[in-house]
Amino acid sequence: MIKELNFKAINMYSERRYYAALFILILLSTSFILSAQYPVWTEAAPGVWKCVIGSPDKLDLYSSAEIKPDLAGILKIDPDDFPLPQNDIAAEVADSRTYLRFPLVKGEQIYGFGLNFKTVHQRGKILQLHVDHYGGADNGRTHAPVPFYVSDRGYGVFINSARYLTVYAGSGVRKDSPAASEERDRNTDKRWTSRPYSDAVEIVVPAAGVEIYIFAGPTAMDAVRRFNLYSGGGCLPPRWGLGFTQRVPTLYTAERVEQEAQQFAEKGFPLDFIGLEPGWQSRAYPCTFEWDSTRFPDPASFVKTMKDKGVHINLWTNPYVSSHSPIYKDILPYTGSHTVWGGAVPDLTIKEAKNIIINQLQKSQVDIGISGYKIDECDGYDHWLWPDVAKFPSGNSAEQLRQIYGLLLQNITTQIYRQNNTRTYGLVRASNGGGASFPYVIYNDYYSHEDFITALINSGFCGVLWTPEVRNSKTSEEWLRRMQTVIFSPMAMINAWSSGTKPWSFPDVEKEVREIAMLRMQLMPYFYTEFARYHFDGIPPFRGMNLEPGFSMQAKSELKNANLDENPYAEAVLKEIKDQYMAGEYLLVAPLFTGQTSRDVVLPKGKWYDFYTGRFAGDGEVIKVTPGLDKIPVFVKDGGIIPMMPPMLHAPAAGQRFDLEIRYYGTKPGLYHLYDDDGETFDYEKGILSWREIKVEVDKKSNLKGTISKAEKGRPDNIGNVTWKFMTQ
Amino acid sequence: MIKELNFKAINMYSERRYYAALFILILLSTSFILSAQYPVWTEAAPGVWKCVIGSPDKLDLYSSAEIKPDLAGILKIDPDDFPLPQNDIAAEVADSRTYLRFPLVKGEQIYGFGLNFKTVHQRGKILQLHVDHYGGADNGRTHAPVPFYVSDRGYGVFINSARYLTVYAGSGVRKDSPAASEERDRNTDKRWTSRPYSDAVEIVVPAAGVEIYIFAGPTAMDAVRRFNLYSGGGCLPPRWGLGFTQRVPTLYTAERVEQEAQQFAEKGFPLDFIGLEPGWQSRAYPCTFEWDSTRFPDPASFVKTMKDKGVHINLWTNPYVSSHSPIYKDILPYTGSHTVWGGAVPDLTIKEAKNIIINQLQKSQVDIGISGYKIDECDGYDHWLWPDVAKFPSGNSAEQLRQIYGLLLQNITTQIYRQNNTRTYGLVRASNGGGASFPYVIYNDYYSHEDFITALINSGFCGVLWTPEVRNSKTSEEWLRRMQTVIFSPMAMINAWSSGTKPWSFPDVEKEVREIAMLRMQLMPYFYTEFARYHFDGIPPFRGMNLEPGFSMQAKSELKNANLDENPYAEAVLKEIKDQYMAGEYLLVAPLFTGQTSRDVVLPKGKWYDFYTGRFAGDGEVIKVTPGLDKIPVFVKDGGIIPMMPPMLHAPAAGQRFDLEIRYYGTKPGLYHLYDDDGETFDYEKGILSWREIKVEVDKKSNLKGTISKAEKGRPDNIGNVTWKFMTQ
Repeated sequence: MIKELNFKAINMYSERRYYAALFILILLSTSFILSAQYPVWTEAAPGVWKCVIGSPDKLDLYSSAEIKPDLAGILKIDPDDFPLPQNDIAAEVADSRTYLRFPLVKGEQIYGFGLNFKTVHQRGKILQLHVDHYGGADNGRTHAPVPFYVSDRGYGVFINSARYLTVYAGSGVRKDSPAASEERDRNTDKRWTSRPYSDAVEIVVPAAGVEIYIFAGPTAMDAVRRFNLYSGGGCLPPRWGLGFTQRVPTLYTAERVEQEAQQFAEKGFPLDFIGLEPGWQSRAYPCTFEWDSTRFPDPASFVKTMKDKGVHINLWTNPYVSSHSPIYKDILPYTGSHTVWGGAVPDLTIKEAKNIIINQLQKSQVDIGISGYKIDECDGYDHWLWPDVAKFPSGNSAEQLRQIYGLLLQNITTQIYRQNNTRTYGLVRASNGGGASFPYVIYNDYYSHEDFITALINSGFCGVLWTPEVRNSKTSEEWLRRMQTVIFSPMAMINAWSSGTKPWSFPDVEKEVREIAMLRMQLMPYFYTEFARYHFDGIPPFRGMNLEPGFSMQAKSELKNANLDENPYAEAVLKEIKDQYMAGEYLLVAPLFTGQTSRDVVLPKGKWYDFYTGRFAGDGEVIKVTPGLDKIPVFVKDGGIIPMMPPMLHAPAAGQRFDLEIRYYGTKPGLYHLYDDDGETFDYEKGILSWREIKVEVDKKSNLKGTISKAEKGRPDNIGNVTWKFMTQ
Repeated sequence: MIKELNFKAINMYSERRYYAALFILILLSTSFILSAQYPVWTEAAPGVWKCVIGSPDKLDLYSSAEIKPDLAGILKIDPDDFPLPQNDIAAEVADSRTYLRFPLVKGEQIYGFGLNFKTVHQRGKILQLHVDHYGGADNGRTHAPVPFYVSDRGYGVFINSARYLTVYAGSGVRKDSPAASEERDRNTDKRWTSRPYSDAVEIVVPAAGVEIYIFAGPTAMDAVRRFNLYSGGGCLPPRWGLGFTQRVPTLYTAERVEQEAQQFAEKGFPLDFIGLEPGWQSRAYPCTFEWDSTRFPDPASFVKTMKDKGVHINLWTNPYVSSHSPIYKDILPYTGSHTVWGGAVPDLTIKEAKNIIINQLQKSQVDIGISGYKIDECDGYDHWLWPDVAKFPSGNSAEQLRQIYGLLLQNITTQIYRQNNTRTYGLVRASNGGGASFPYVIYNDYYSHEDFITALINSGFCGVLWTPEVRNSKTSEEWLRRMQTVIFSPMAMINAWSSGTKPWSFPDVEKEVREIAMLRMQLMPYFYTEFARYHFDGIPPFRGMNLEPGFSMQAKSELKNANLDENPYAEAVLKEIKDQYMAGEYLLVAPLFTGQTSRDVVLPKGKWYDFYTGRFAGDGEVIKVTPGLDKIPVFVKDGGIIPMMPPMLHAPAAGQRFDLEIRYYGTKPGLYHLYDDDGETFDYEKGILSWREIKVEVDKKSNLKGTISKAEKGRPDNIGNVTWKFMTQ
């Protein structure tokens, strides 16, 4: 050490040198010696407070995502005060770690901490937030372990750290906690519990400092909106991104892909983009990022042919560089110490590495019209990802790189499309806090239909999108049930990379699958608008009931097994609503899973109507539905306005006009703002967009009258004929 | 920070002060700045090398266990050289973490990393060594996540750290590794694998330094022996500790316990100690460490009455202090920031806290004759243990306290008994590296019979003991199968704290259970000797086949599921031998599990004989056995000498003579050293012990002749009549 610091060279009698040494000493010691920190908050945006504890890492989530807060969007939310008692927030740096504490009150529910698959309510959980594939347990290891939580008391907390955070979301009990419950004797007191009441979220950040953010309410939705808008607002996909997509078997040739698209057309199934799996590349796992010339002899003309048929092409890749790749030699100096499947791992915190990747994708793929990517394996499974001992030339740690790799890859590819003024919409297997604006949907290899829906709910709490993709099924029942939910999600996709399934693979439900796929197309104006609201207002397009006004369902604990040999601490199991969700402003979706013929649906306060018939379904109550195999239960909020287009096989292209059917549900006056733009470019950022007011008025005799405003002059106007359908009679 | 360090008080012009500041600066910076370390090894004992990397924590495993290396024991092992190429060992401190690398060669197998339950072969595993209850997956979270591994190439590696270590046991592949396998194209090359060859064990220590140890061979067993002896040698239980033990339901009264012992006697079941569960205390979870006066009105006379009947008493406790405990007020200043079930958590790294606990146990329990403890819940389950954010008055971190809490509790209680010159033998739910000499057996709440056997195997690689305790069963078949294995383990126990089962609870196998329990008693001279070898020679009494000469079974990988939708990375499953083990020098135990009527047994090279009949069973081959429900397959090595005593209901007390039946198996000459001492005190440490040579000679006509030497004069001699049984005819 002495040699490295070269202290011998310091002139010991120089006062200036002495000060310098002292200064370094103080600097070093800040991150080393136990030090209690008293958080000082500054308002980073209206209703957004920031606090710096100790000496945070330079590399964090927000810097990796290069967020550009949408202050205009945030200003549209009702202002609110700092939402927590500041004295109850504690932060301390000791032992090269930062310890954080945020208060909880009795009955408070918290949601978030990333893309969990089995649970919605997070109070009481212990998680280590760690980017990883989902391994079957909600332990913090997931594709997007976003360090953000939102409380039903109307605030959010974000830890801007690219470290593996250990979160005690209301489990620890402090000796000096005024809320600590009375001690009980387990021998004789039946009220004894293995999990006494805890009044705080406590977090360990394994670094000597961190930035934290508090997002004000007044509602939980407001806090989520602020969180999303602070990272730039949600993504706005191209319109075709909301159409139907099929991923083809990995070794398909250009010819076979063209045939596949032809089949979709012949059979009358919608298709907006096809995803090519590893076989488009000359080598994969690791990748060359080059076309395979045997399977795709003329990529440019293939892509053009497909686009002429209305079908965009998306390309799978993972980020690991094959030694056979044309970029291998150039990128090698900017790669980590360890390989993944023999491929070099680009240090994407280094500009040169980014540029090499950008140039290759641009030249080989984006410039010939490829519409986007599926970025695989950036989440990792410990057994093949770089280990935490890996070194990267930037000096950033393996841990940090892992937490942000998905963000960096989304950022890089988003930049390419932005330069081309063309929107993209793709798939990614890892994201993190700050990534809301990236036009990517998370997917994985796990395949529990039920848990896929819980993930969809959780995606809405943490600024990510998720698709409950359909791959294959054991029965036609399962196939149809899965198709019914994927069309009420950010990406309506069949991923047949291995199975080779088609929408018509289960002939006895082919008709029903076609219908539901067509419903997805019909709902495009509605979903497109809901994504615009994600972008401009921060409102997640798919989200849990817990963000819905009028929904109040406390999670209840149940002792399911009283056998102490099997459950020695008599632990209870949380019962929660994790199988129904909101799709946009008005639609409540309550899927059925294989084996179910009926289910309960919890309707929030206010009247709700059946989507298909318009009939009144209930008001603030639990109803039982028995919809038949061909229907997924969907309910519409009173006053709900659902703008729909005809069942087209492709999304309307830029400037292509389409008719509108406006469905209205219920009895109270309705107001909706329909979004429109060219559907393909970033010109909406220059104001080239329209918000058209759709209004339903109710007169004294309960007669309904619907109107839609015209697009402002010079603004996009793609609407042809408008028809009205008042669903509730 | 400035205020705390009070730099303003430093006289800036004083040269001495300048040096002081410089010195502190250097000290601080050593743990802070990236620094490559070149390990320098010093020989800590013959065949044991130590290396200090960076600035290790003061609190580590060896200091917590207060190890006293048994140099005399180590000297008895064949000397060997430093077993690894030193240049292939790398260590580096960066980012407040220490990164370690140890080489692996092709085909090398490694075992250890603590008490794993599902796997024996650890090469390729990724673990975070973290003291915890076992959660059903071998991920490093277990009751004894000992940072020690042993290689079949004949060496061991120990990381002396009380941190959560992340271990890549041969999974990462370095870009510059000369052994890295050729890159493959997954699109077309069937040889592609999701887990390319890795040539190193890599470890992250989340601290700016660490001590590491290498234990030489030449065999894997030699390395294990050195590891055990370096921490003082294995424990030597009192003789009664190897008898049968029953744990009674938690609210049993003194009277009911006496009745229970009476029933054992009447029914002719052996019983050496009874364990009282939480109800002996006036309050539990958290604990008072005081007798409950209603259930135990006169503890001293109860304990004496029981002892007079030949039954020792063991007491359950956990370490969390109730506010109703007499020690609460005194210990409170030495407890952590967080509570466990409302109980205070003693900071057992503080002398005052230790002494308060020691005094209470001594006064209330040990002084009236309590024979030992079952120390529960020191492993933790995150949901009730102190969180990693907890603070302790010593300044040691919550993480460190967690890793060593089991060691500290074993150390404290062992000290009490040592002061009384009385041996103890108890149960503990957490241990770690360095704890081999503590007379404690690990247990848990998990209950897979198969996995319990795998744990027994793994216990032998890492210096801990494990009991596959019997609690309850669904069928009498399961009951008997479990009883058959627990008697071939360090503690023959029924734990009926919740179920209230008795050995005779399944009447249709009562006779068989009695027989197997009696076999345990008969084997006491053999097992007692094998524990003496654990203590004096470091040889684990129960251990995997992998430490047995002549056993060579490479673990093979099998692709069990080729469906890529379900197994997207085509991952193979390791097939390994984890259901048979060695019990001492001669016995190979091959249990059957519920539902099995026959099984394969892998016999190492050399002749093996059936334990019950003496018949030849096989030689270096896989045999199939169909033993019937009443028998557990046990095989004896050629030349095996098994000293047995009559089927007594209690272990012989100090000085009590017993007859010896010496069984001999096979055809080759045999030699065994039978250990003896008073069975109760530490006087063996003063040399008051005997090793008697048992010899079987074979003459030219294959006639067998057995002899046993006399105990040296003045040394313990408890053997009455000796009879010989030559089993193989």
